[in-house]
Amino acid sequence: MGPVIEQIPAGDTRPRLVCGDCGFVNYVNPRVVVGAVCLWQDRILLCRRAIEPRKGFWTLPAGYLELNEGTEDAARREAYEEARATIDLTALLAVYALKHISQVQLIYLARLTAPAVEAGPESAEAALIAWDDIPWRELAFPSVRWALDHYRAVRDQAVFAPATNPPGEGGRPI
Amino acid sequence: MGPVIEQIPAGDTRPRLVCGDCGFVNYVNPRVVVGAVCLWQDRILLCRRAIEPRKGFWTLPAGYLELNEGTEDAARREAYEEARATIDLTALLAVYALKHISQVQLIYLARLTAPAVEAGPESAEAALIAWDDIPWRELAFPSVRWALDHYRAVRDQAVFAPATNPPGEGGRPI
Repeated sequence: MGPVIEQIPAGDTRPRLVCGDCGFVNYVNPRVVVGAVCLWQDRILLCRRAIEPRKGFWTLPAGYLELNEGTEDAARREAYEEARATIDLTALLAVYALKHISQVQLIYLARLTAPAVEAGPESAEAALIAWDDIPWRELAFPSVRWALDHYRAVRDQAVFAPATNPPGEGGRPI
Repeated sequence: MGPVIEQIPAGDTRPRLVCGDCGFVNYVNPRVVVGAVCLWQDRILLCRRAIEPRKGFWTLPAGYLELNEGTEDAARREAYEEARATIDLTALLAVYALKHISQVQLIYLARLTAPAVEAGPESAEAALIAWDDIPWRELAFPSVRWALDHYRAVRDQAVFAPATNPPGEGGRPI
């Protein structure tokens, strides 16, 4: 039947989903998303999503951290997978907690090593976009806007603390 | 049998463990550990572990982020669970990637709101320890030392970037 029975396993303190056939306990944990605000001069790399959720909307290159992968490696991998971009990370820009979907997002600041970008398989388009041309009303997720705003706020600072969720914002779609 | 067969599910790109009886796919993801270097004046809160792994060794209050929990909430919860301490977070001190165990650690810097600490159920002892009295040879995990060292390096700075793994250190026990 798969792990569909909710019970507290021996030695545990919280209910987990257990398989009634074999006793397998499905420990579900929060997931880590890693992404980056990637710059070429003053332009920002955005990708238009070719897949759901939010197909057709613009996002930062970002995705799930894989097993046995470092967070910085994941940021570089996603930039390449989604926009064929190679990047150098310069700082940790933000750590967001999206509690309602049990997601932690680590967003880095990075510089492209070359201005050539191209849509990967999960993107319909990859583009280097000037601040004034950012499609604010067509961003895929609230945290994309948060990260862009925080980049704007700290762009002239040599050292800064990573941002957290903006006050009162949990990350649910508006 | 539970999810013990390694295969690439339809629409996926990596092998996952699948149950041969029911087809359940066990998506295993990296886990997030949240902890804090907690200060009372110049003293640092350390807990002696009452449980394996590394029972009897000293650690920072830290533990797994739970579902639907914010990372800052988790740091406060762990300080209370392990040392009955209430804390105010002041900064993100470090983000460590322990690739060999697929773990991301977020370590905050915090101040105790009162100097009363007491061992919780997973601690044999909780103590406020001066820098010169830290039991360096009895620390539970490499990342405890990393976080203490980074705290020492940035303690006089109003703003700083969070640390990452020290050069060449992946987090395997030494």
